Amino acid sequence: MLFTCDYLEGAHPKIMERLMETNIRQTIGYSEDVYCQRARTVIKEVIDREGADVHFLVGGTQTNMSVIAASLRPHHGVFSAASGHINVHETGAIEATGHKVLALETGSEGKLTAAQVERAYLAHITDETHEHMVKPHMVYISNPTENGCVYTKAELVAMREVCDRYGLLLYLDGARLGYGLVSPCCDLQLRDLARLCDAFYIGGTKQGALFGEAVVLINPEIKSDFRYLIKQRGGMLAKGRLLGIQFETLFTDNLYFEISKGAVDRALHIARTLENCGFELLTTPQTNQIFPILTRSEYELLAPRYGLEWWKDVDAESKAFRICTSWATTDEMVSAIESDICSLRRK
Amino acid sequence: MLFTCDYLEGAHPKIMERLMETNIRQTIGYSEDVYCQRARTVIKEVIDREGADVHFLVGGTQTNMSVIAASLRPHHGVFSAASGHINVHETGAIEATGHKVLALETGSEGKLTAAQVERAYLAHITDETHEHMVKPHMVYISNPTENGCVYTKAELVAMREVCDRYGLLLYLDGARLGYGLVSPCCDLQLRDLARLCDAFYIGGTKQGALFGEAVVLINPEIKSDFRYLIKQRGGMLAKGRLLGIQFETLFTDNLYFEISKGAVDRALHIARTLENCGFELLTTPQTNQIFPILTRSEYELLAPRYGLEWWKDVDAESKAFRICTSWATTDEMVSAIESDICSLRRK
Amino acid sequence: MLFTCDYLEGAHPKIMERLMETNIRQTIGYSEDVYCQRARTVIKEVIDREGADVHFLVGGTQTNMSVIAASLRPHHGVFSAASGHINVHETGAIEATGHKVLALETGSEGKLTAAQVERAYLAHITDETHEHMVKPHMVYISNPTENGCVYTKAELVAMREVCDRYGLLLYLDGARLGYGLVSPCCDLQLRDLARLCDAFYIGGTKQGALFGEAVVLINPEIKSDFRYLIKQRGGMLAKGRLLGIQFETLFTDNLYFEISKGAVDRALHIARTLENCGFELLTTPQTNQIFPILTRSEYELLAPRYGLEWWKDVDAESKAFRICTSWATTDEMVSAIESDICSLRRK
Amino acid sequence: MLFTCDYLEGAHPKIMERLMETNIRQTIGYSEDVYCQRARTVIKEVIDREGADVHFLVGGTQTNMSVIAASLRPHHGVFSAASGHINVHETGAIEATGHKVLALETGSEGKLTAAQVERAYLAHITDETHEHMVKPHMVYISNPTENGCVYTKAELVAMREVCDRYGLLLYLDGARLGYGLVSPCCDLQLRDLARLCDAFYIGGTKQGALFGEAVVLINPEIKSDFRYLIKQRGGMLAKGRLLGIQFETLFTDNLYFEISKGAVDRALHIARTLENCGFELLTTPQTNQIFPILTRSEYELLAPRYGLEWWKDVDAESKAFRICTSWATTDEMVSAIESDICSLRRK
Repeated sequence: MLFTCDYLEGAHPKIMERLMETNIRQTIGYSEDVYCQRARTVIKEVIDREGADVHFLVGGTQTNMSVIAASLRPHHGVFSAASGHINVHETGAIEATGHKVLALETGSEGKLTAAQVERAYLAHITDETHEHMVKPHMVYISNPTENGCVYTKAELVAMREVCDRYGLLLYLDGARLGYGLVSPCCDLQLRDLARLCDAFYIGGTKQGALFGEAVVLINPEIKSDFRYLIKQRGGMLAKGRLLGIQFETLFTDNLYFEISKGAVDRALHIARTLENCGFELLTTPQTNQIFPILTRSEYELLAPRYGLEWWKDVDAESKAFRICTSWATTDEMVSAIESDICSLRRK
Repeated sequence: MLFTCDYLEGAHPKIMERLMETNIRQTIGYSEDVYCQRARTVIKEVIDREGADVHFLVGGTQTNMSVIAASLRPHHGVFSAASGHINVHETGAIEATGHKVLALETGSEGKLTAAQVERAYLAHITDETHEHMVKPHMVYISNPTENGCVYTKAELVAMREVCDRYGLLLYLDGARLGYGLVSPCCDLQLRDLARLCDAFYIGGTKQGALFGEAVVLINPEIKSDFRYLIKQRGGMLAKGRLLGIQFETLFTDNLYFEISKGAVDRALHIARTLENCGFELLTTPQTNQIFPILTRSEYELLAPRYGLEWWKDVDAESKAFRICTSWATTDEMVSAIESDICSLRRK
Repeated sequence: MLFTCDYLEGAHPKIMERLMETNIRQTIGYSEDVYCQRARTVIKEVIDREGADVHFLVGGTQTNMSVIAASLRPHHGVFSAASGHINVHETGAIEATGHKVLALETGSEGKLTAAQVERAYLAHITDETHEHMVKPHMVYISNPTENGCVYTKAELVAMREVCDRYGLLLYLDGARLGYGLVSPCCDLQLRDLARLCDAFYIGGTKQGALFGEAVVLINPEIKSDFRYLIKQRGGMLAKGRLLGIQFETLFTDNLYFEISKGAVDRALHIARTLENCGFELLTTPQTNQIFPILTRSEYELLAPRYGLEWWKDVDAESKAFRICTSWATTDEMVSAIESDICSLRRK
Repeated sequence: MLFTCDYLEGAHPKIMERLMETNIRQTIGYSEDVYCQRARTVIKEVIDREGADVHFLVGGTQTNMSVIAASLRPHHGVFSAASGHINVHETGAIEATGHKVLALETGSEGKLTAAQVERAYLAHITDETHEHMVKPHMVYISNPTENGCVYTKAELVAMREVCDRYGLLLYLDGARLGYGLVSPCCDLQLRDLARLCDAFYIGGTKQGALFGEAVVLINPEIKSDFRYLIKQRGGMLAKGRLLGIQFETLFTDNLYFEISKGAVDRALHIARTLENCGFELLTTPQTNQIFPILTRSEYELLAPRYGLEWWKDVDAESKAFRICTSWATTDEMVSAIESDICSLRRK
């Protein structure tokens, strides 16, 4: 009974069912089959953008490196929060494509601001020595961030304006996008992303699929020849149908948002219980990831039992840990961890 | 009813069954789960090499670029048959890791010989200008080759000797390894590969899995830190268990070889029928891919009906096409294509 | 007294004189000084192309990799003669920027033809599998070729037409451009190159400078941000003035062409003597490099004495060697080698 | 009469003289000539390390990227001060070789400490997620730093110990090494570097040469095949003799240290005058670069007249500028700027 992350199980039962049903049918490979076509259609409807290109890849690192390699010339760099996935947890995959990640420090929410991007851009484009420095050409943001926080529409609009002012591309990593969009703190919809970003991806792996991310490309420069990039970076699945089937299922009958809502509701329930029992949280709970601050005796008891991942040292005595829910989290699991948590600080 | 390739369907039913059974169990990610551990153990038993490292990746291009990136320093190149997958059909993935593919012409079987590798190596290492040329450091071979042909043990032993003489690494791409090992033309076993190669992979995608390749690393230099390479190149699957479950199933009760044998038997049956009906084949049939030479009127009828892939222009009037079988090919499918084929040349 | 290559000495005395004269003057760095500005102006006059961009780099490999990196997206490849410098003698520098060199076989002159480029392009852009192959985006030619041969205007016009038809860039490596332009076989002028190529470079290193190549960029896509590329690839000389001073000198009072003519005249003189004495040459002599075919006893005597570079085995008994002249070759040197050569076959 | 940087002029007259003297002599190319051999010998004597390899490259960025590419596997990163040249002023050249620069914040001196490197290393090598992060494998330091400060022997010994403890390579960028070694604050000698570093380079460009850096390789892993790396990265000069002649001259009769001492003495003289006149300096003056803090009216007068480079905004009203001396700085130049400086704050 673990809360380690949102990819502990296989896939949502509806996905497994569809994979079984279709298993023996013959289709051509490389995501040119009918399931992928249908999944593309349904996603373009949801984002209300007929002209977008939708591609399916297996995982997030692969997706990020393909989009970024497709978007940048060799001397270009990409802004990212210092805590951003591409800066910390992709083993230098972006640098391995030849590009510098220009890391910017953020607050505990892990969000970049339009103003800081503007300042950082201007510091790179000076009169005299600019060609001795990497030229920023893209802003990478995650929504929700690594710390489970969401951008507001106003923040994203401001970022878009800065990007337009300086010719920067805006790319949004949506590994946990569903959890963000259903958050009570979020005033954005999928269709807003298609209007505000040059490219973004809709995560599947952490959102109930066996694996898979759906990349949406808006900017024609990134669209061009993108399938070559997928293939070259090792992201073209032979049996691409598996991706089509999964995303078609996720975007049928609102399943994607239902999964997300169930997980977020349960995480926020645990968060309220934590607060009621006197625990502090590292950041305001917004999505399916919450970060209680535990003392040594508390985390020595809870962490192994629930597989909680260490997140950050807060001070000499206490650390923040991650509790993460998913489509597979049950009410029983919630009750169990809440009961254990509260017993810790009950007098 | 297609014979286009060996990845037209989902997975072998036993694999689907295991995925369903295990779907709701919680495991940690990134191939450190119990299913992967068991799959590693069983593979190491089959290859009789306790000290080997076994890793699981999603696809072949990804696997090739990860192994090659792990093996070479920046100035190193890799020998390949001109028809080799890395030279033709991976969109320059190897060059995108910075390395030159040193293509060598071969006969229609697509096999490199030890003697030609030796000659090519020596031509790169001359007294005066060698540092102006790429330094060869690896030999890449596919077994079976792209053209469905297999290496003999003697050929592989000779290649190993040349590699040892000049400090070259030997890497074998086994995307269709099972089909090769059960071929009547093959005198190699899996355990021989572990003795003769520095690294090789056992293909899953084209051998009945949904996806997945099992890389076996023998040489300590390639082994070192290989998980970093997998992650950096985008090949680390979050729900790595999916790979473990599939390979454990494939290597339980001999399923991998059964699947292979069924497909090869059916391909060779079609080949014999073709020959009996007076067709020529591009190469001697050896594995699950056969390449009949068809005239215009013949291929215009057969190719669309059975999804046959164009392979090569033979002369102004005739072309070679590929017929490819798999675990999912049935006797009915074989009868159907045989009947259609023979009716073409029946007086 | 060597004929090994055309970079055996320092620089032409007029260049050394100018370097001495200007040595103590202060200028800003990185080729933004007045000497570079003047050299750019004079080169733009000679090529009759006010809108071109002219940059100065130190060496040829550096220049090739900077231009190619600036021109291609990651999935793009570049056509080259199999004997082309980028394919053989740059230690995989192009692959190290991530791009495949698509090598095409040529005759002994080392020239690509427009027809073969067209065929090769079409073979890469098929209906079904094109994204599994590198996409050709540039044609790289050397003029003169590695074998000392020159393109005619008609050949270059035909190549331009093919490039236009398929959206390919045409890049000309002019490491020995001067020797080509003054060849009696050449009907091209510098200004033609600016009309027919997207980019080319005017070699200095092998043409009387201490070092240096002047890149001329015509196509706006390659021009954009090119100084970033120079810097990133390590080609931006701090004391860029050294390049400006040299190229200004070379293009003052026709020095560049005078140097070239002197060298070509002397090479062709030796070639005629060789032919008169009964020697065969590997290719028709056209520029400052000629390739006599010598028997074992002949080359054992001549090669060490004149530092002749082995070029190619012709048959079991004879080999082609290179005789290369430069600005520093004197009439005395010519007489000496001619006398030795002729004494070999004198009855 | 500029103090912008230390590469405003050509070369020290003794170098120019030697280049003139040797200009017409013939030598083979690519640094295999007799001048390079002699320069290697004399450098190995000065560093007292017969077994070292010494190579000559044209510039610093080229040198850094060649050494780093030679040293790292694809998943390796390199620690650098955030202000380090490879992190800021090489247009992402290191990332373009595929490697992440792991930037660490420093004090105003720009020096890394052994303790911070140890902490940063340990933060990358955690139990669970280490392969999701770049693996640090090298420490890059500049001596003097970008800010003109020098490491003490104790600091370097401590860094070596940390490197040994964790298997890290230590690489020292000596673009201005001479100015550092003659600093009154420095207790290191050239031979200490050969004992403490795996690789370092002795700068020529900023130390009186036309161009050129002498790389000293100690660690066998970096030494291996290094000429291939130089060639592949575009750093192999055809007329390599130019590098040999320059370094042989610099290391004859102590010229290198004389040049350095003259420049440092003059810089420190100006620094004392500044302090006497009431100016603050950004860092304690140690080498040939000093950084006075000027008010708006002061820098508007001085900066254009002496070509002073903006260095840093100190507060709303004042900025630090760089005054940089070299072999070509004369006593007259020093008097002039001192006189102007002091007149600014004279009552």
